[in-house]
Amino acid sequence: MRGILIDLDGVLYQGDEAIPGAAAVLEWLKESRIPQLFVTNTTSRPRRAICKKLASMGIEADEDRILTPVVAASCWLKRQVSGPAALFMPSATMEEFENIPQLPAHQESGAAAVVLGDLGEGWDFPRLNRAFRLLMDSPQPPLIALGMTRYWRAEDGLRLDVAPFVKALEHAAACEAIVLGKPSKAFFQEALKMLGVDAEDTIMIGDDICGDVKGAQDAGLRGILVRTGKFLPSDLDGSTHPDAVLESISDLPAWWEQNSP
Amino acid sequence: MRGILIDLDGVLYQGDEAIPGAAAVLEWLKESRIPQLFVTNTTSRPRRAICKKLASMGIEADEDRILTPVVAASCWLKRQVSGPAALFMPSATMEEFENIPQLPAHQESGAAAVVLGDLGEGWDFPRLNRAFRLLMDSPQPPLIALGMTRYWRAEDGLRLDVAPFVKALEHAAACEAIVLGKPSKAFFQEALKMLGVDAEDTIMIGDDICGDVKGAQDAGLRGILVRTGKFLPSDLDGSTHPDAVLESISDLPAWWEQNSP
Repeated sequence: MRGILIDLDGVLYQGDEAIPGAAAVLEWLKESRIPQLFVTNTTSRPRRAICKKLASMGIEADEDRILTPVVAASCWLKRQVSGPAALFMPSATMEEFENIPQLPAHQESGAAAVVLGDLGEGWDFPRLNRAFRLLMDSPQPPLIALGMTRYWRAEDGLRLDVAPFVKALEHAAACEAIVLGKPSKAFFQEALKMLGVDAEDTIMIGDDICGDVKGAQDAGLRGILVRTGKFLPSDLDGSTHPDAVLESISDLPAWWEQNSP
Repeated sequence: MRGILIDLDGVLYQGDEAIPGAAAVLEWLKESRIPQLFVTNTTSRPRRAICKKLASMGIEADEDRILTPVVAASCWLKRQVSGPAALFMPSATMEEFENIPQLPAHQESGAAAVVLGDLGEGWDFPRLNRAFRLLMDSPQPPLIALGMTRYWRAEDGLRLDVAPFVKALEHAAACEAIVLGKPSKAFFQEALKMLGVDAEDTIMIGDDICGDVKGAQDAGLRGILVRTGKFLPSDLDGSTHPDAVLESISDLPAWWEQNSP
């Protein structure tokens, strides 16, 4: 094993508190010069804000060591398309797209790609219909989905996230979105490109049996589950078998030493 | 054969003109006392307006002999649920739901059914999210879709129809809609109930190889295709084989006499 992908929420911290030992593990990673990347499905905050949150809990992380669906989309666009992209996403994360040429708002054709994030209250018929018309262009531009979360729990109740709008557009325009976000293979491949390590030499450590472990294994990595965060004992009864199960991330160095040649 | 379902647009008329001989065929049907029902996917107009359009072209039709997805939904609700329904549909067809108890607007739980029509510009995040929250109730109310049209061509370009919003809610709330509209089986079953004739004794005549012919055949009826309306010669090259192909509806009486015992 040569590289590590690390989930954030539930692995390094829980709520507003660091998981005991998390900071020491990151120290060890740095000293051991093991290529590492923090991989999260957060689409509501730019890397700058994520680093700030980590720092407030005593965890040091470099911005360029964090991969979010937004960052993955930005990298994907830079590499794969040359024309302007149509971005449907909240302003909070627009700073990650600074260097991406963008289609003028209201223009209804000529997008080199259509990128969908969790716009929430920003969705209305004209906006969704604009995304649809852009996708009906010939040739059809790719549809990029920033994750496939169905809904989330806001203070006033459940709220639709990005996935329902992706499904609406996929059906209307008869296309299939490229999903950038765990557990999608495309997202893990983007992570491996940033890490510079092959899938078979990389582990993913997370608290989500599906998003982290199954997603990683499907992409050819090894998947390690921690018993912190959203972990439930029943996670181990399903068809996904983690390559290892650790009490918490603080057990990672010992496991690594044992399992590394 | 004892009963007939007849598509409207493309079978009885094309644009604003009656198909030659259509009125005479309807006369013949009446005189022969063959149970008949006009079956259309139109959701933008109530039966009253459809009768008016037919009359302007010299075609007589009774309101209670017309089945639209809106009417099918109203019948379905009357029969299947007892509580109030949440209706997401344009005001033009709301008159068809006169006798259906309705959930007060803005109420986000307690719907006995959630009915989705082509709201068009009426869709915004709060409205779609309300439909979602209603569907996340326990027990989950059924989701009724007034057809599954993906989009239509408006004067200013393509516009999302009802299906993308159905797909969004199905995915978000992990449910499957009951589709009332051709080619869905549930819609044809509703038509047979109104007609009072069994599937195997009924024919459907239409100009849509999928919506009319395949839908009918899948529901156990015989499907007859006419070479008017949206008919294309290539319709006959696919995997659906109509039970008969007629030049137009005016050939129906002769075909019926030959094929009826």
